[in-house]
Amino acid sequence: MTFSAILVPAELADAVSDRAWLAALVESERALANAQSLAGILPAHVAAGIAGACRVDVVDADRLAAEGRAAGNPVEPLVRHLRDAAGDAGDRVHWGATSQDIMDSAAMLVSKRALGLVIARLDDLAAGLARLAAAHRTTPMAGRTLLQQAVPITFGLKAAGWLVAVVDCRRRLDDLCAHRLAAQLGGAAGTLAQLGDAGPEVVRLFAIELDLAEPAVPWHSDRTRIAELGAALSVAAGALEKIARDVALLAQTEVGEAAEPPGGVSSTMPQKQNPVRSTVAVACARQAVGHASVLLGGAGQEHERGVGGWHAEWDALSGALAMTGAAAANLAEAVDGLRVDTERMRGNLDAAGGAIMAEAAATLLAERIGRKAAQEVVAEAAKRAAAGGGTLRAELAASPVEGVASEELDRALEPDGYLGAAPAFVDRALAAYEEERQR
Amino acid sequence: MTFSAILVPAELADAVSDRAWLAALVESERALANAQSLAGILPAHVAAGIAGACRVDVVDADRLAAEGRAAGNPVEPLVRHLRDAAGDAGDRVHWGATSQDIMDSAAMLVSKRALGLVIARLDDLAAGLARLAAAHRTTPMAGRTLLQQAVPITFGLKAAGWLVAVVDCRRRLDDLCAHRLAAQLGGAAGTLAQLGDAGPEVVRLFAIELDLAEPAVPWHSDRTRIAELGAALSVAAGALEKIARDVALLAQTEVGEAAEPPGGVSSTMPQKQNPVRSTVAVACARQAVGHASVLLGGAGQEHERGVGGWHAEWDALSGALAMTGAAAANLAEAVDGLRVDTERMRGNLDAAGGAIMAEAAATLLAERIGRKAAQEVVAEAAKRAAAGGGTLRAELAASPVEGVASEELDRALEPDGYLGAAPAFVDRALAAYEEERQR
Amino acid sequence: MTFSAILVPAELADAVSDRAWLAALVESERALANAQSLAGILPAHVAAGIAGACRVDVVDADRLAAEGRAAGNPVEPLVRHLRDAAGDAGDRVHWGATSQDIMDSAAMLVSKRALGLVIARLDDLAAGLARLAAAHRTTPMAGRTLLQQAVPITFGLKAAGWLVAVVDCRRRLDDLCAHRLAAQLGGAAGTLAQLGDAGPEVVRLFAIELDLAEPAVPWHSDRTRIAELGAALSVAAGALEKIARDVALLAQTEVGEAAEPPGGVSSTMPQKQNPVRSTVAVACARQAVGHASVLLGGAGQEHERGVGGWHAEWDALSGALAMTGAAAANLAEAVDGLRVDTERMRGNLDAAGGAIMAEAAATLLAERIGRKAAQEVVAEAAKRAAAGGGTLRAELAASPVEGVASEELDRALEPDGYLGAAPAFVDRALAAYEEERQR
Amino acid sequence: MTFSAILVPAELADAVSDRAWLAALVESERALANAQSLAGILPAHVAAGIAGACRVDVVDADRLAAEGRAAGNPVEPLVRHLRDAAGDAGDRVHWGATSQDIMDSAAMLVSKRALGLVIARLDDLAAGLARLAAAHRTTPMAGRTLLQQAVPITFGLKAAGWLVAVVDCRRRLDDLCAHRLAAQLGGAAGTLAQLGDAGPEVVRLFAIELDLAEPAVPWHSDRTRIAELGAALSVAAGALEKIARDVALLAQTEVGEAAEPPGGVSSTMPQKQNPVRSTVAVACARQAVGHASVLLGGAGQEHERGVGGWHAEWDALSGALAMTGAAAANLAEAVDGLRVDTERMRGNLDAAGGAIMAEAAATLLAERIGRKAAQEVVAEAAKRAAAGGGTLRAELAASPVEGVASEELDRALEPDGYLGAAPAFVDRALAAYEEERQR
Repeated sequence: MTFSAILVPAELADAVSDRAWLAALVESERALANAQSLAGILPAHVAAGIAGACRVDVVDADRLAAEGRAAGNPVEPLVRHLRDAAGDAGDRVHWGATSQDIMDSAAMLVSKRALGLVIARLDDLAAGLARLAAAHRTTPMAGRTLLQQAVPITFGLKAAGWLVAVVDCRRRLDDLCAHRLAAQLGGAAGTLAQLGDAGPEVVRLFAIELDLAEPAVPWHSDRTRIAELGAALSVAAGALEKIARDVALLAQTEVGEAAEPPGGVSSTMPQKQNPVRSTVAVACARQAVGHASVLLGGAGQEHERGVGGWHAEWDALSGALAMTGAAAANLAEAVDGLRVDTERMRGNLDAAGGAIMAEAAATLLAERIGRKAAQEVVAEAAKRAAAGGGTLRAELAASPVEGVASEELDRALEPDGYLGAAPAFVDRALAAYEEERQR
Repeated sequence: MTFSAILVPAELADAVSDRAWLAALVESERALANAQSLAGILPAHVAAGIAGACRVDVVDADRLAAEGRAAGNPVEPLVRHLRDAAGDAGDRVHWGATSQDIMDSAAMLVSKRALGLVIARLDDLAAGLARLAAAHRTTPMAGRTLLQQAVPITFGLKAAGWLVAVVDCRRRLDDLCAHRLAAQLGGAAGTLAQLGDAGPEVVRLFAIELDLAEPAVPWHSDRTRIAELGAALSVAAGALEKIARDVALLAQTEVGEAAEPPGGVSSTMPQKQNPVRSTVAVACARQAVGHASVLLGGAGQEHERGVGGWHAEWDALSGALAMTGAAAANLAEAVDGLRVDTERMRGNLDAAGGAIMAEAAATLLAERIGRKAAQEVVAEAAKRAAAGGGTLRAELAASPVEGVASEELDRALEPDGYLGAAPAFVDRALAAYEEERQR
Repeated sequence: MTFSAILVPAELADAVSDRAWLAALVESERALANAQSLAGILPAHVAAGIAGACRVDVVDADRLAAEGRAAGNPVEPLVRHLRDAAGDAGDRVHWGATSQDIMDSAAMLVSKRALGLVIARLDDLAAGLARLAAAHRTTPMAGRTLLQQAVPITFGLKAAGWLVAVVDCRRRLDDLCAHRLAAQLGGAAGTLAQLGDAGPEVVRLFAIELDLAEPAVPWHSDRTRIAELGAALSVAAGALEKIARDVALLAQTEVGEAAEPPGGVSSTMPQKQNPVRSTVAVACARQAVGHASVLLGGAGQEHERGVGGWHAEWDALSGALAMTGAAAANLAEAVDGLRVDTERMRGNLDAAGGAIMAEAAATLLAERIGRKAAQEVVAEAAKRAAAGGGTLRAELAASPVEGVASEELDRALEPDGYLGAAPAFVDRALAAYEEERQR
Repeated sequence: MTFSAILVPAELADAVSDRAWLAALVESERALANAQSLAGILPAHVAAGIAGACRVDVVDADRLAAEGRAAGNPVEPLVRHLRDAAGDAGDRVHWGATSQDIMDSAAMLVSKRALGLVIARLDDLAAGLARLAAAHRTTPMAGRTLLQQAVPITFGLKAAGWLVAVVDCRRRLDDLCAHRLAAQLGGAAGTLAQLGDAGPEVVRLFAIELDLAEPAVPWHSDRTRIAELGAALSVAAGALEKIARDVALLAQTEVGEAAEPPGGVSSTMPQKQNPVRSTVAVACARQAVGHASVLLGGAGQEHERGVGGWHAEWDALSGALAMTGAAAANLAEAVDGLRVDTERMRGNLDAAGGAIMAEAAATLLAERIGRKAAQEVVAEAAKRAAAGGGTLRAELAASPVEGVASEELDRALEPDGYLGAAPAFVDRALAAYEEERQR
């Protein structure tokens, strides 16, 4: 990844690094020997010999990649190195397996660990959002649709909406992590013929060794699991992009309702406070979606092993994991130090002469003169206010509607009184968050 | 959709047609009135008046679209037509709601119904695949990796792999259908302020009316649900593409192991039996993935309503639903009438001089002379066989390995004896299928 | 397309309708007969008989699609209808051709006509942008990077940037239209064997008849032309999305520098002036990108005719054309009636205490006290201004830098004096636009 | 990139490495100083001082990335290091520029060099394909549509089709390389205000220094150039995927018409000759399409600098370049050593009882008994042949059509006599290739 450290925290980059993949490959080969030993088809001392050889430093990752060019995968050369290192036990290294068994199982291990980090960063983010939602449960601000002020909401409601999205995406990733990351073991074409009758039992023990799910059948060319993972990361990245965009929109000079913690300095413009973490989060999210598209578009793999579709997954999977996690991490930082300007929020409600209260006014008037007439009265007043630079309140007061007392109108035009279910919705979101935490 | 009927069955096209959307829009408006009445904020006779107006023929769908151009959505003109039709009750049509509430709720209704059809077609397909898996549990054929013959498998195992993918995709769609299709009701910007304190209660009743899930908070600009649906359809489409490609590969003139039911005639080549349904299934699947990419890439919607991201969803959602269902329907037809040529499968195992049994031979020899030597002996024999046009069996017999009896070698080279766990895996797949059916 | 008329102008919808495709199919069959006649391999009266049958109403488009289901394309049934209609000449209808010849040639005809409309709408848009650029060549406004005010620009420069993008995208589409839309004629598998020696000559005449380019070889499974077209539409859609997003950002209540012509009414919020056309343009652009992704991802078509990849193109091509054109059309409307508020632009330059002039101030001071010291002085002043709600000018004036006269500082802090090459760049953009118009 | 060396040749990986980017960044800063000196706004000795500091080892790329995290780009810290290294000249490092100016210009330099390699690999491939086309101009083989044998073609025609696609994609990349890779220089928001009146002249000289095109206006947020590049790479990747898939299909055990040079060994199946380079080429192509989708989907960048859209480009651009080049390189290797089995090609023409000659037979008979009757006679014969395992020739001979001599039928059923324009098309493709080489 180009200048990776700008976007991706080190722990996420490490979790999908070639070294992490190599460690997972080696671990899969060891688990295979162990499983065969437990199944009674490999003497314990042979398994022990193999286990001893299965160290991450059996070969350098770069060398492995270079040597893997001929066969088109890193497992073929790895097995040779492991055989050399295992001495007498060497002949039974990789016994009954095919390269894809080891590579796919490693992909699941890498995914499991990286997903752990992705979920942890989503948890950080969710905690920050929950704090914002609770703290600003009743803080009024402008709700904006098509980027136009619509009616008042609370900042807590906005944060609650962000929170629910994160909680939902986290749940899906957690479910996949727990249930759909499965060991792969099928041998050359899915029959495990070299293992005789012991095949299914070895699969069971192999999955236990790796702490992965046991699949009903080998899934060499059924990439549903991989596609599901890519899909869930893509969905999460989309949710993160939405939040990050909103933060950047709130931080606009002309809006000024939120600001990231200082840091986004500009070398030439001393006044700028760039929303750098949100910006970077958007960049990560978009790349995650791109990587996931490779996983979603590549499911049509031929017969018992795909012609290239499989090989295209490795980097795309690494990228989707790292970039989704990076989006969450960067956004969590932005949210954690977010400076919320509640005064500016309040002030912006008056920005357009208080026209944001038009629906509230129309609702009040409708009770007296009917919906249609009320809409017209308010629309006219809003138009006059906009044209003359006055306020909606003044224009409505200037042509009072019969039966509507001035104090009544004032009350109706008060944003704090027109927040509807916003606080209740905040409570519901926080409850959903707590429920997910208790799972 | 261009020449839609070539790809999409009528029932699926209907389920996402403008008329279906219009019906769902109207149903949502009726449900809103009913919910408000049940919540005690709308007199029953007013609700009844609204319900009476809420008929699908209140306006023509084409006209609605044309009239919806100004506001950028079809709900704004629909509400006007409903108000006209509802007479005295007209003022309370759409009360408290925003256009997106109705459009999103309708999208969920359309999705629910179309998903029902998608799942039904997946069920047809799964039933066909289960039949194939059971019938061909032990039918030997060549396993192929990177399109090269690898080791024998059974056709039942191949069908079992297809089946598991379909079962997994179906489960996810079913879960989404049951739990994640939620009503939308938030009013102008998510507070339901016009409904006063009754907002959450109206949401609850509205969801019940529509038989949709009740969301924790309005999700106007949290498109996770839409993205999840798109993602699951994309994953399913990928799985279907894989199966369809495999069928077409098996149907190749030079392979000839399967053929679709007759029908794919060519106007100029009288001999051709094109795998038309599989071909069409691939086409549908690829379009489904394309439509889903719009849903996955469009989640970054601004503040309380997106600038265009939302509007881009309607057609993409319709397309993803119809095309995934169409892929399943076409493929189910192909599978249902699939003519399986087990003799040809058996014959192809001998295609390359029986070289497909090389692993089996090497496994046998390894027991006597070690893995490495065995590999070399077999590789040499395979090379000689390929060069001379002979068989692996003959070449191995010509230079016998000490301690390996001729009959033993014959047994090892028999594909039926080297099927490993294939039948067991078939049983596991069928069990998983049955379990899903019992859910 | 769901509620098509909301997004897509009728002429564009018509240009990619089933009827338009049918007309192009029929035209291709007629051109084939004419070309064979001109090449001397078909008697003129037979060609005339075929030409007489080749009318768009030879069959209904819906019926054709239904009948095309069996063969998986509409040409097979169309040929039957044409043969029936052509009487004695019927046997020579479609002579030497394959279904894909006719379908691909029709796709090129549909593309050519639809592209003409797309380009016309891009021309409308470019004209509107050129007017804006010229009219606001020196109108100062805030330049915004990462959505933060950066330094002053002119609105003309912004419009010039939009214009250059449109001109570049238009040029590419025009080039493709002129050079890369090619006739397709190869017969069953690309050899035109049924035409004997006359093949290449018939190709040449066929291309002339259709006013399409003559390809070097049949391109049944080389989809580069289709992918290029999808790519260029996707690029154009992206450029249009950028402009539409900018318009919506300028129209924000808190920014208020531009507004679309009235029309985007809200049913419940009388004050709202939604940027509907920009919103719709964004929606169209995103769908165009989605459709194009099918064309770009589907190039891997097998041997002499793809298994599904080809069939997936038809709707994707229609969609990419219609949606790109619709994005341009909607955006052209928005731009045409755009109300530009130059006072608000001027006012927003003072929004953050004039901090947008910090770079200008630092540039002046750097001449006296060096870059680093100048940066610090200005950064401190900007910080004080932001904290105290004062202006940058006041803070700088309060702690004068030796050797910088007050009037000098005033001049430096004047946005009109810090517009750099903005007007010159506007002129360059307009020149590039004129050059493209003269092509 | 995960195990990069398996897929990507070292020179391509190097060309998009962080070090290559760093070198291009440094070169851009040097060019900026030089251009200002030539424009007369920077003393020559200051420019010389800056030039002296602009070495690639001014800072380590990893450190740069880590330090770039705060500002969200690598240029901000790079400028600090360059200023330190430039001593007295330090204050004028980066004068008038913004980070994106340097990063975008560097992106263009990186693209130019990497594109050079991509094009060189496409040239290798084209040369190999031209050799195949010429050598097999008249080598008969089965043409296959929907993977069914259709009519005979020549292998030269197939290679010619591949060649034309490569030539077309190469031309587009070459054009972009020559005309659309442009320098970027606009300063903070596109006005170059810090450069006073000299802005446009500095842009001109800067572009000359970098040997890049001079843009009409700064293109900070007009990403058309980047999208075009991504699009052209995506199109090329698609064309490469098609060829690679075809090679793998030809190499199938049951088809056996082509084989890659030895190398794709399997650790457990000694007989296998995997099409590894084609497989890897497919994998690279799919990833290139994925990376390009980020560039195509990310054009909607806000105002004068995008919120994340820009930052998402860096890795996607590197990836699209490297992966397209890698696809070409791997495929060129496959093609270069391709073993073509012309006997097998000839043999496969008889595979289905010679049914591939059905169209030829029907064409002959049609001259005597009309098209429809001829079709029926041949279809019946083909059906009998398929059912009975006989040949089409025998079945047709058994029920002779009046007026068709036996020798005439024999001639018609000879594949070599039914190759139509295949050789002529090969010549046209080779001519197009030569023309492109002379450009």
